[in-house]
Amino acid sequence: MNGDEERLARAALTRIGEPGDELVGRWLTEYGPVETVQALGGEQPLEGASQERWAGLRLRARGARPEADLAAIGALGGRFVCPGDREWPCQLDDLGDTRPIGLWVRGRPSLRFWALRSVAVVGARACTDYGAHLASVLGAGLAERGWTVVSGAAYGVDGAAHRGALAVDGATVGVLACGVDVAYPPGNRALIGRIAEQGLLAAELPPGDHPTRSRFVLRNRVIAALTRGTVVVEAQLRSGSLVTARRAAQLDRYVMGVPGPVTSGLSAGVHQLLRGEGEVVTDAAEVIELVGDIGELAPERSGPVVPRDLLHPAAVRVLEALPARAAVTVGWVAHAAGTASDIAYTRLQELRSLGFVERTGEHWKLTHPDGRHPNR
Amino acid sequence: MNGDEERLARAALTRIGEPGDELVGRWLTEYGPVETVQALGGEQPLEGASQERWAGLRLRARGARPEADLAAIGALGGRFVCPGDREWPCQLDDLGDTRPIGLWVRGRPSLRFWALRSVAVVGARACTDYGAHLASVLGAGLAERGWTVVSGAAYGVDGAAHRGALAVDGATVGVLACGVDVAYPPGNRALIGRIAEQGLLAAELPPGDHPTRSRFVLRNRVIAALTRGTVVVEAQLRSGSLVTARRAAQLDRYVMGVPGPVTSGLSAGVHQLLRGEGEVVTDAAEVIELVGDIGELAPERSGPVVPRDLLHPAAVRVLEALPARAAVTVGWVAHAAGTASDIAYTRLQELRSLGFVERTGEHWKLTHPDGRHPNR
Repeated sequence: MNGDEERLARAALTRIGEPGDELVGRWLTEYGPVETVQALGGEQPLEGASQERWAGLRLRARGARPEADLAAIGALGGRFVCPGDREWPCQLDDLGDTRPIGLWVRGRPSLRFWALRSVAVVGARACTDYGAHLASVLGAGLAERGWTVVSGAAYGVDGAAHRGALAVDGATVGVLACGVDVAYPPGNRALIGRIAEQGLLAAELPPGDHPTRSRFVLRNRVIAALTRGTVVVEAQLRSGSLVTARRAAQLDRYVMGVPGPVTSGLSAGVHQLLRGEGEVVTDAAEVIELVGDIGELAPERSGPVVPRDLLHPAAVRVLEALPARAAVTVGWVAHAAGTASDIAYTRLQELRSLGFVERTGEHWKLTHPDGRHPNR
Repeated sequence: MNGDEERLARAALTRIGEPGDELVGRWLTEYGPVETVQALGGEQPLEGASQERWAGLRLRARGARPEADLAAIGALGGRFVCPGDREWPCQLDDLGDTRPIGLWVRGRPSLRFWALRSVAVVGARACTDYGAHLASVLGAGLAERGWTVVSGAAYGVDGAAHRGALAVDGATVGVLACGVDVAYPPGNRALIGRIAEQGLLAAELPPGDHPTRSRFVLRNRVIAALTRGTVVVEAQLRSGSLVTARRAAQLDRYVMGVPGPVTSGLSAGVHQLLRGEGEVVTDAAEVIELVGDIGELAPERSGPVVPRDLLHPAAVRVLEALPARAAVTVGWVAHAAGTASDIAYTRLQELRSLGFVERTGEHWKLTHPDGRHPNR
């Protein structure tokens, strides 16, 4: 993939351009990141930028310290994932010129693999008990079935969905509208910390950057594009969750809504969606029934979605450590693979989300004992 | 239309064959009602009937007293409406061999005209307060907009829908699974009486006949066929209301459902429907938006659906009594048309449901003052 120079340029550009800036996106396509950053150091504006626009971008370019940002993400145990990288989720390319410049990622699992079988669960911040209950049940149900729950780590529905997934030791990704080291909203600090440890945090903004109103809105397009479908749990008319859902529809992802009482204003937005592009879902099984057969991306319900040779080496070691037919504990796997339990656990989760292994309670086993490394 | 002999034969057959009996339906098509009844007086079975079947039908034929039934319906101020009659709702012909033999009708308005702009509102007998509230709001909302609310006069959602329509002096039709003089369920006696006075009762069963389990199920096909669409308010999985809704879908009517909490078993059937053929509706306006433009049957939203020369003479007198531009009271119209207030009121309702007149509070006026008798 990209050389260090290109990665550095992209890192700088995440601090220079706002998320989803189409003009910067076009320059990236036309000139590449290195040339774009170089141009921003000069006087001659690139095509399409007004004088003021160019001045603003140059000002930001002067303040960019990409080496420091890359060092900061490294210190957090994270990384900066760029288009073309092994971990880059290619479905984000559907965003065209508004494709993220790169994603700052925290957490052990592979964003690319986790996102392959993922569903967004979004909704109102000021949700009702009904909405919070549903979001957590849905998050848990999706995660239990080996699906990754993606949301925005906000109060209300978002947080409940993440918590549901975490409660069953499932896979969850928080896509933030700020740096992956910034706890926003502050009341979700503990939750965001848990996601970073047990799941993944991803953001277009570099470490330390803060959210703005427009960043929240633009973050939603990443949630929509990353996942196979978006489920809206509770939303008022004209809510941000509906924006995410409609974006998902534009991107040919599934759009789903959990109905509620028609007497509740917090279900009005969902019902509006259901009268348009949205499909009614009432539980995790129904969500999976829908997103589980999305044309070309579709895995067998319990089959692998990527060939073995794309797996992380640590995942391959875990896969090879599993016995042919017996179901074993994480401790057993860790010992056999010669790795720590928490790493074995993360890789087992990843392998499960990819259809290589299955879990029953505390035990893990191969899904296809006769073909341990099935390719597509 | 039919001569007296044919009407008498059909009346007899409503006591001989069960509602929706396809064999009797085929005989009616092949031999006509008179010959069918004559054959049932003889030894030679008509085509398709087993020995036992034929014996059973003959036994019932011997007990049929159609003159008495016709006298009884007359005494109730009602009538027996047959295919080919001016008041016959032709959309019932979509039922093919299971088309009702005839309908016993109580109430002043024309069943045919009222059914032209009608919607079925059905649901659970043991509904929640939420379901009852919605059904009555929906019934009122539909009726206020000049639509006829059709239901089964049962406890729960059915009754609430009728009551909602009655509360705004709107049009409502109760389709019964027993004689139109039988108050079933007994707790709805007062409601059924009000429907007979203010709206219409219709049944396939002759006066005095009682409901059975299968008659309830078969009654549902009449509700489905009579209306432009069926709205299910609350229904458990495998409920009778879903049967009505699916029948409506088979008949190319609109199928709609009002969502509710997914945590409520009484909304589970509705959500199942919404995941299949059903459309989400949350209020009367949304129902009308959907059923209001049903291809060939569609009236202008405020235009007439039948030409003036198909109107009942009493309706024509009322129409002609209305002033060109002023809005007037029922009393004014009754005086001008030289008729009783209650009759004027019924005809105004009918004219409104057909798009000839509009109502604002207590006042009525022509919809098309410049073309008082617009034809299609």
